[in-house]
Amino acid sequence: MILLSGRLSSAMLPAMTRLTDVLHLRVRYSETDQMGTFYNSRALEWFECGRSELMRRKLGMSYAALEERGAFLPLVEAHLEFRGPARYDDLLEVDSTVEVSGRARLRFEVQIHHAESRKPVVRGYTVHAFTDRRGKPIRPPAWFIERMSQAAGAPEMSKT
Amino acid sequence: MILLSGRLSSAMLPAMTRLTDVLHLRVRYSETDQMGTFYNSRALEWFECGRSELMRRKLGMSYAALEERGAFLPLVEAHLEFRGPARYDDLLEVDSTVEVSGRARLRFEVQIHHAESRKPVVRGYTVHAFTDRRGKPIRPPAWFIERMSQAAGAPEMSKT
Amino acid sequence: MILLSGRLSSAMLPAMTRLTDVLHLRVRYSETDQMGTFYNSRALEWFECGRSELMRRKLGMSYAALEERGAFLPLVEAHLEFRGPARYDDLLEVDSTVEVSGRARLRFEVQIHHAESRKPVVRGYTVHAFTDRRGKPIRPPAWFIERMSQAAGAPEMSKT
Amino acid sequence: MILLSGRLSSAMLPAMTRLTDVLHLRVRYSETDQMGTFYNSRALEWFECGRSELMRRKLGMSYAALEERGAFLPLVEAHLEFRGPARYDDLLEVDSTVEVSGRARLRFEVQIHHAESRKPVVRGYTVHAFTDRRGKPIRPPAWFIERMSQAAGAPEMSKT
Repeated sequence: MILLSGRLSSAMLPAMTRLTDVLHLRVRYSETDQMGTFYNSRALEWFECGRSELMRRKLGMSYAALEERGAFLPLVEAHLEFRGPARYDDLLEVDSTVEVSGRARLRFEVQIHHAESRKPVVRGYTVHAFTDRRGKPIRPPAWFIERMSQAAGAPEMSKT
Repeated sequence: MILLSGRLSSAMLPAMTRLTDVLHLRVRYSETDQMGTFYNSRALEWFECGRSELMRRKLGMSYAALEERGAFLPLVEAHLEFRGPARYDDLLEVDSTVEVSGRARLRFEVQIHHAESRKPVVRGYTVHAFTDRRGKPIRPPAWFIERMSQAAGAPEMSKT
Repeated sequence: MILLSGRLSSAMLPAMTRLTDVLHLRVRYSETDQMGTFYNSRALEWFECGRSELMRRKLGMSYAALEERGAFLPLVEAHLEFRGPARYDDLLEVDSTVEVSGRARLRFEVQIHHAESRKPVVRGYTVHAFTDRRGKPIRPPAWFIERMSQAAGAPEMSKT
Repeated sequence: MILLSGRLSSAMLPAMTRLTDVLHLRVRYSETDQMGTFYNSRALEWFECGRSELMRRKLGMSYAALEERGAFLPLVEAHLEFRGPARYDDLLEVDSTVEVSGRARLRFEVQIHHAESRKPVVRGYTVHAFTDRRGKPIRPPAWFIERMSQAAGAPEMSKT
């Protein structure tokens, strides 16, 4: 089985194991700074909101449930490009896509733009390792990979 | 012993079981909002910084060490009065005082003002319960009360 | 007119100038702390989310629009009672009520509990002054008071 | 003049226009999350603390003073590699280096590790544009470049 190989070959995973989701959120007053737009680190928090909703809605398993089963997804890398302003109360759209990346990691690509004008705000990605409760790296659990494949191959699930 | 009574009478504790400490910090850019001053919830985070330093420096035991010994101090109540602005990079002084309050609780009184001008910024207090790791209320541990009494009655300890 | 008196008597305002609103939100991972529940200062940020939605939906004027017209509502006081835990991804209900309080101030009362179980999480209030752009106290603008009275006396507006 | 060229050639700036600084800070309780370590977005806030201190101490001009003179440095890009855990109350060292990068931008390289054990925590960089108060891109002000050159030990640059 691929999970015994210690390394997930992308060739072993169907090309379709990508899940996408769209989340809307409003910029909170607490997220602004004295420049009048959102403070830069908030973008990473919005990325997290996107991940959480994607998992609940598309994977059919919340990240909270994942942690309860002993699998954690700490960040190992993040990249952000700031492309335009967003102000307090602006309605933003967070588009997230997740895929298993080569070295047994998850990679989320995120694009944030204004919901109405479609003007870009932030673009970036985060890379996550699989670890146990104490932070020790583990292989992606078989049930998790199955879930992802099913979700990606079963478009009717995405309606849930 | 007072700790078996299930309730700490303030009469049973020496009047001197109060500890005070002074901490300086600068307003971070991330703590400002579009009004140009600090966002209100940051004050509670500064209160926490004051508590942490007070415990490490005056009690001779960090809050981290307290949690390691199984005693937690979640907030049960907080009050804040916003008295004046503070801007990015302003140097603030946080004056904290802790005392055991009647019902087996800790109460921290905090005053924050500008370090140089002494202009007031925030004043308030937080009240904390003692709980175990799972949030179940416990009596203040005997060793904790002893520490507080010793620290309050032994001013030379505060040099540590 | 009452607004020339320099002080708003509560007797002069119809008893009905209270507006209420309900907001749902999920606890973000970024809002948790190592105790496993939400960090205390987040409650003030949720209070702000409740205020923002109440104003947009019930007053028919966002707080952003209020600031654009030159009226700001900085906090002068806040009080919080922490009544129970809330964990990552929990769905919370924020119930907010606003009223003009005696001394030309706005007061928001907030109750937060779990959306499904109705278990309490936080209860508290915030008091806000009216100021201009530079933080100088002003009287509540006449158009603002009118809006509030209209909104409070026209329950059909709340459906908008 | 290089500043009229609309683009700063790195060849035109002496290689020595790099400034470095070291800052120590403790992980706040508010910066932890339920995984028990710091929440990922806090790293960007620590990067900002490093920038602020570097500018005040090495450039002899706080970022606050820079904004007062009408020059802003919004982030255009950020990259983070998470290399190890850091827990509440841990003492961290933030090493920051700034240099003018090719396209009229500033680039800060940051390394964060544990102050005592030297174990790595986060490594990354931020890239900043120069803008005016309204976010419109501007060329790096001549006085700013002079300051940097002087601080870095290249007084001859200030004549350029």
